[in-house]
Order: sequence, then structure tokens, then C-alpha cells
Amino acid sequence: MAVYTEFSDEELAAFIAGYDVGEVRFCKGIAEGVENTNYLLATTTGQYILTLYERRVDEADLPFFLGLMDHLAARGISCPVPVHDRDGNALNRLAGRPAAMVTFLDGVWVRRPTPDHCSAVGKALADFHMAGEGFGLTRANALDHTGWRPLYRQCEGRSDEVRPGLGAEIEAELDLLEAGWPDGLPAGVIHADLFPDNVFFLRGELSGLIDFYFACNDALAYDIAICLNAWCFETDLSFNITKARALLSGYRAVRRLERSEIDALPILARGAALRFMLTRLYDWLTVPDGALVTPKDPLDYYKRLRFHRAIDNAAAYGIDP
Amino acid sequence: MAVYTEFSDEELAAFIAGYDVGEVRFCKGIAEGVENTNYLLATTTGQYILTLYERRVDEADLPFFLGLMDHLAARGISCPVPVHDRDGNALNRLAGRPAAMVTFLDGVWVRRPTPDHCSAVGKALADFHMAGEGFGLTRANALDHTGWRPLYRQCEGRSDEVRPGLGAEIEAELDLLEAGWPDGLPAGVIHADLFPDNVFFLRGELSGLIDFYFACNDALAYDIAICLNAWCFETDLSFNITKARALLSGYRAVRRLERSEIDALPILARGAALRFMLTRLYDWLTVPDGALVTPKDPLDYYKRLRFHRAIDNAAAYGIDP
Repeated sequence: MAVYTEFSDEELAAFIAGYDVGEVRFCKGIAEGVENTNYLLATTTGQYILTLYERRVDEADLPFFLGLMDHLAARGISCPVPVHDRDGNALNRLAGRPAAMVTFLDGVWVRRPTPDHCSAVGKALADFHMAGEGFGLTRANALDHTGWRPLYRQCEGRSDEVRPGLGAEIEAELDLLEAGWPDGLPAGVIHADLFPDNVFFLRGELSGLIDFYFACNDALAYDIAICLNAWCFETDLSFNITKARALLSGYRAVRRLERSEIDALPILARGAALRFMLTRLYDWLTVPDGALVTPKDPLDYYKRLRFHRAIDNAAAYGIDP
Repeated sequence: MAVYTEFSDEELAAFIAGYDVGEVRFCKGIAEGVENTNYLLATTTGQYILTLYERRVDEADLPFFLGLMDHLAARGISCPVPVHDRDGNALNRLAGRPAAMVTFLDGVWVRRPTPDHCSAVGKALADFHMAGEGFGLTRANALDHTGWRPLYRQCEGRSDEVRPGLGAEIEAELDLLEAGWPDGLPAGVIHADLFPDNVFFLRGELSGLIDFYFACNDALAYDIAICLNAWCFETDLSFNITKARALLSGYRAVRRLERSEIDALPILARGAALRFMLTRLYDWLTVPDGALVTPKDPLDYYKRLRFHRAIDNAAAYGIDP
């Protein structure tokens, strides 16, 4: 929720001149995206999102992200599509930053998802997983289960500031997840961040998915586990099994879940909760004074983690195991 | 440059339902406006700016601001026009804040104005002054020369943190301006904040004026003095007389300046520089830790003030006195 990089009207005009998109009508910095700077750019040919990639994003990953959007759009997924310049490049530079323009998607994200929204998201996630097949590039998940302990080490001494005893609990969790993490599950391109603010709806229908900047190759069921955390807890952090059932049914209407994936859901959901708790914990403890963003409470994910830890099997998610 | 107030998609839909503007297509918080929260709202009938008025704005002033935009638009000024709901109200509430929707203006603001831009702004300011005649509501200038000393008192003890000796210089300036401030100049509705970010251009032509939230009744020439400060200094804070001449010529092509107004320009410009220095000084000294905005350097206006103080008469602005 910040605009980190600004540019002059002349710099913008020079950037736009490389594309076949007409002339600038307006360009407004928008309060979306924590990692990058985003502008809503309107030209005489249409509306676009202009993204300037900030330092937290590895430039070497950008061809994967932009190529994935091209690949998905060509397979019928409603998502932003990179605009290529007259030389065919989707990636250029503006104001000293790598920059890309993508098509604009109508829609609003829902603050309080209903079971119907969850069902639509489950279906869209499965469509995304199917459409990702055959994409030529790969990207390792920098925040998979092997990345959690190094991340925790960076806030190790201070986790108990957030909640007494939290450090010991995280360490026990890391031991267990590292020992028991499933392997051999069906894998492919996952979104890895399909939270409500990355899914647009229009008149009750899902209108598109955005923000592919955490996408990577990993177990497909791990993506479902992230969505169970992101969509199926109420604001009081109670778990809503009706929403989980809707999400999983929506998914299974498109892609068959294997036995091994269903069995793995509780540990995958537990890992996903820990992953988001750890990045929030890191941000919480390292946010600079005067920062432009308010860090999110890591304990929201501590409570989710405790829910997943307490269940026996995937039946708790409304699935028939 | 901040979004202070957020709302759910249901709250937005309920708000919109009171207007004849169709259904929401999207709604993006935009990084514009320090005082208020602004969203770019698109519906099936068009694009609008949706403003939520935050605590710094006095609700009692809102009918003046919104009525002024209606009045100006009806007289041919290109500016945002309030959208009235089905009951004829331009002002409603959203997420607990007073809120209004205005029409959207295409254009971008220029970071580095040329003399041509200054000429266009001078003309637009005069058009604005002429169009303001006959507007039925009035609003005193809360930041006129009688408001500067109370504002200074709030940062009195700390001004020397910004520059040694600044406090004594401000006090001497206040004494002089209070004693010599001109009265009886032609008065009317002034914009009072016509900085480059409030003037849009499209393909080199001025496409509109925005942000009427400092508008008030005061000497028209004081508005010109604000523009001299806002448009005619380079980034190194040197004064560009070519730009000033262009701005004043543009203005005079529309509205005749009286002898008294021309003679008063140096002291008005000096007062305008002090006024912006004082509000910046106040913000600089009172900005809370973790604020969402970076305060602007008050010394930019100290340097402008010193320029105006050193001149004999309006000839220094490229005008023939």
C-alpha cells in the first residue's frame, strides 16, 4: 500500500512511446501492492496497471512472472496480461526501476467472503493449476519448508516480544514440519499468495486473479492449504468449515485430488500458517520507523496454526477423507 | 498521499445505490491528497473520484467546496463536478466519514512546468476568479495574514531546530506583514492552493483544475502571489522571471489587474511564502512517528521569502509596474 517510486510526465511519455498504446490520459499511483509501486495508467487505447519493481523483488524472477501471465492468459485464465512493446519486450525500465505494463482487470476484492466466493476461488485455483501445465520456465519456492528456519533465525531472539513462549513453539513446529513434510505430491505452478485481495469479483462472479509475484513450482495441494488459511477463517479467527467445504468442492469439480493430497492437507495447512506467521513476524520486528506500511499481526496466523495442529485429518476441512 | 479510511465492497455498493451511476466496476485507493482519502471509482456509467473527508477538514465547510465546484462547472471551468444522489445531495457518508463523488478529469500534472504551462495557469486562474463571481456562499480564509501568528506560536520554541535564527526572522516578518498588509484589494473566491499537482494538462493543453479544499474569499491578487511561489521557482529555488512574466501575462489577458494589485504583489508574494513556510514548519515539527506522509521541507519557502523580500516592486516579476 505505497508508492515508492515517482516519475515525471516526460519520463512517462518516453516510456509509453515504446508501446503501441496511444497517449497518456492519466496516471494515478494506487494504494495496492506492498512489494512494488503500482500506477493505474489510462491511455487513448485503454487502461493498464504500470508496475515498477522495487528492491524486494529479484529482477531475475521477472521473466518467470511475466511469462506466466502470458501463458495463463493464452489458456483462458482471466488475469492481467503483459503488454509487449514494439520490440516484443514485456519488461522495460522507468525511473531507474524495472517496469512492466499489464492489462487492467475490472472487479473488487471481497472483505468478507461467503461460501459462494470460496467455491469460486476453489474452482479458479484448480483452473490455474491446470492452466499452468506446460509453462516452460520454473522458479523454486523461496519460502518453502526449507526456507522457514532461516527466516525464523532472523527474528529468533525477539519472537517472545510478540508472545511469551512463541520462540519455543515455533522451533518445535519447525522440527516437526521439517521431519514430516510430505514429498512426492503432484506439483506444478502454484500462485502461493491467493488471498482475498488478489481475487476480483464483479456482480457476484469471480472476474480474475492478480498478483503472481509469489508464484513458483511446488506441491499443488500446498496452494489449497494457503487458501484454506486465507479464505476460511472468520475475523474472530474461528474456522468456518462451510467455507472450507465450498472451497474444496469448487476445486475438486475441476481437478481430482489424489488420496495423498487429501491426507497431506492438515500438515500443509499447518506449514502454510507457519509460513505466513514467520513473514509477518519478520516484518513486525523489522519495520522501520516512519515506514509507509503498517505491519500485519503475526498472531493471526499463530491462531490458525493452532487450529490445524489440533485436527486429526482432512475431515475437519469438510472433505470426506 | 495516503488512504486513511477503507470500506468493504458491501458498504461501497450500499453507498453507490443512492446514486444513478450504475454498478461498481472497480475502486482503487489513489495516492493523492494529503488531507483526505481518495478513490478512483469506476462504474458502468463512468469514472469518478470518491473522496472521504478526514478529520483535518471541517464538515461545515463541505457545502462551500462542493457548491463552488457546481458553480464553477456551470460557468465553464473544467473542474470536477459533484455527482448528486437521487435526493439531490452531493454529500453523504461512507465508512463513518462524510463522502462525496465528483466527476473524473483526464490529465497529468507537470513536474517541471515551462513558461507555456505558466501562461496557461495564469489564464486559468483569471478564468477561475471571473467564474467565482456570484457564488452565493462565502468562506473566510483560515490561513490569511491574521492566522499566521497563531500558527507560528504552535511551533515557536522549535523553529530554530530547522534553522538557527529562523524564529526571530519569522517574528520580524510577521510584524512587518501584519502592519503593512494591503486591504481594499479586489476580492472574491480564490483557489488558495493552485500548485502544479492541482492543474492537469493533456497534450500540452491545460485540461482542468482540481482540489478546491482550500478555496475561500480573499484578495484575488493573493492567489496570483501564491501561483508566483508555486510555479516560478526552479528546483534549485532560483526565480525564473520568464515564467512569472508568462503567468502574469496569461492572467492579464483575461482579467485586468488594478494598479493597487500590481503594487501589492511583492508583499502578497512574501506573505504567501511565509504562509506555506509556516504550515510546512508546523507539519515538519509535528509529524508523528510512523506517519504515512513525508513532510516537505519548510526551508524551500524560506528561500522564496528571501527572494520576495529583496525586491523593490513588481517589475521583478516581469510586469511593467
